[in-house]
Amino acid sequence: MKITQTTNPKDIPSIEQLRFGKYFTDHMFFSKYTADSGWDEGEITPYGPFQMDPAASVFHYGQALFEGIKAFLQKDGQVKIFRPEFNAKRLQDGARRICLPEPPVELFVNGVKELLKVDKRWMPENKGHAMYIRPTLIGTEEFLGVRPSSKALFYTILSPVGRYYDTDSPSVKIWVEMNDVRAPQGGLGAIKAGANYAASLRASFQANLKGYSQVLWTDTTHKYVEEVGTMNVFFRIGDKIITPALNGSILEGGTRGCCLDLLREKGYSIEERAISLEELKEAYKAGELKEIFGTGTAAVITPVDTLAFADEEWTIESGFGEVAKWLFEEISDIQYGDKEDRFGWLKSIDEL
Amino acid sequence: MKITQTTNPKDIPSIEQLRFGKYFTDHMFFSKYTADSGWDEGEITPYGPFQMDPAASVFHYGQALFEGIKAFLQKDGQVKIFRPEFNAKRLQDGARRICLPEPPVELFVNGVKELLKVDKRWMPENKGHAMYIRPTLIGTEEFLGVRPSSKALFYTILSPVGRYYDTDSPSVKIWVEMNDVRAPQGGLGAIKAGANYAASLRASFQANLKGYSQVLWTDTTHKYVEEVGTMNVFFRIGDKIITPALNGSILEGGTRGCCLDLLREKGYSIEERAISLEELKEAYKAGELKEIFGTGTAAVITPVDTLAFADEEWTIESGFGEVAKWLFEEISDIQYGDKEDRFGWLKSIDEL
Repeated sequence: MKITQTTNPKDIPSIEQLRFGKYFTDHMFFSKYTADSGWDEGEITPYGPFQMDPAASVFHYGQALFEGIKAFLQKDGQVKIFRPEFNAKRLQDGARRICLPEPPVELFVNGVKELLKVDKRWMPENKGHAMYIRPTLIGTEEFLGVRPSSKALFYTILSPVGRYYDTDSPSVKIWVEMNDVRAPQGGLGAIKAGANYAASLRASFQANLKGYSQVLWTDTTHKYVEEVGTMNVFFRIGDKIITPALNGSILEGGTRGCCLDLLREKGYSIEERAISLEELKEAYKAGELKEIFGTGTAAVITPVDTLAFADEEWTIESGFGEVAKWLFEEISDIQYGDKEDRFGWLKSIDEL
Repeated sequence: MKITQTTNPKDIPSIEQLRFGKYFTDHMFFSKYTADSGWDEGEITPYGPFQMDPAASVFHYGQALFEGIKAFLQKDGQVKIFRPEFNAKRLQDGARRICLPEPPVELFVNGVKELLKVDKRWMPENKGHAMYIRPTLIGTEEFLGVRPSSKALFYTILSPVGRYYDTDSPSVKIWVEMNDVRAPQGGLGAIKAGANYAASLRASFQANLKGYSQVLWTDTTHKYVEEVGTMNVFFRIGDKIITPALNGSILEGGTRGCCLDLLREKGYSIEERAISLEELKEAYKAGELKEIFGTGTAAVITPVDTLAFADEEWTIESGFGEVAKWLFEEISDIQYGDKEDRFGWLKSIDEL
């Protein structure tokens, strides 16, 4: 792979300065696709702007997908990536859905590895901090007819990060959205398309103004719970852990899958199925709704202490509940090498 | 407005070479927005690539909207734009929905006018050809947290065009989609967001492979007719003209509005309401489904001769039906100045 080192390295922000997705490292990885030549072998260059034609399809027809992955500095100085193949395959699923060419898994994973090697000095050292990896796939053909782009750009950038939510408490308050819809079944909800986020920004912004960190999306009938846009959602009702099934309109989160693996290993009773607001309300009124938490690469495990509706608020003890705390610690310990990686989630950047 | 003329003008393609959205003129208009300074006054430069940061929100969170407008060369040499204020306001509606700053109507319309003046030599002369105008609005802030972009770019490019559909017949065959969904109510279907097109590409592409030009979208229940993605849809059943009401998930097409104005003026019985496939099927079986046609800026009036389902095809006489033909001629005659512009649809680029 061709690597062009920067001649003008940036100052690395201090741990205190870090905010999610604000600082980017010195380099980026990219590969270009054309219908005639396929994907090129990829290269690493100094981080900087792309030249984009005003007619490029990403600006007009929403052909944009991304992934979110984290890498963690281990005590022995190794850098390990969390489940990059999972994200590489999910990007391929998304590419098929919105008619973009699929970057090969090897191109995706090698790009991440080589980029992390080149920018290794940027790896944050503290537990709780990580390197956030953002692979992105966009259509670039300069043509205004509505059809799949015959050219694409796949690129990866890195951003050292701390916590995702900018709140004092570890738990967040969430607004249950009953008007706007993130995605219908038959739409793009199951893939990490920019389109889903475009649909979600208004309700999220309005929720922020009202003092809520995020929105809990409901389905097109506004009767069933979907996801939180940046997280999947789990409920502990009595002794059961319930999370919405992968119904075609919610994202198959990587962290969601890890939580299910850990919960099953521990012997929890898990249900993946449709969850109605009615059922949640009954459980809440009966005092059986013990915990709510979100799961996601950026948010890790984030407890939810409040679900707010236009006419009522349901509150749960703030901070981490028992299950959320256990999951958070278990996942973090594996990520930073404090516990054995028994599920094979980590991949060293030096592994072939 | 600052205008930088190209020093390297392109060859203008012949009328025979024109395909929809393939050739772009010598210049482009753009204006930049920042939260601190608002919109700048805009400028015209030679057509060329933008420098875009890899973290720009348009690549990640789908903050992209566009418009489609046409301008027509009149016999007296004037250039007239078709309803630019309508599109300017629709872009503003869209911007509010996906949390982008709204370009002022004046900035939008003046940008189009000045750009058409600078590139006037590109105006196609033949009736049936026009200058297609593509205003585009994208979020450009370099930040990966999910929230509205604090920076935006609004730009307009021009493409001389002929017919939209590349078929021998003036009428097209359409596939009725029963799996994928373009947009739900509460989503982005009512605005011209790139996101809607991302959701629609797969079904359109599959329909093309089966020999159909476009897809007729149904609602999230797959019982009601929505639109054709690039066109709104009208049905003539007996003596009534019926088109889906603006229900929040279909686009308010400019040409749709013009057709309603013309049909009302002529005294047609019009119904804007939900139309089920069941109702259409009954009308078809009874021989009452006389015409189907699509309306849109790019497609003008395009008759539909076939509606195809997985297990059946409904066919209507090919070519233009009576109402579609009348609408097409009436609109074309007004656009090219052969009939009086009695609705005030045209705006000269020289008008203040």
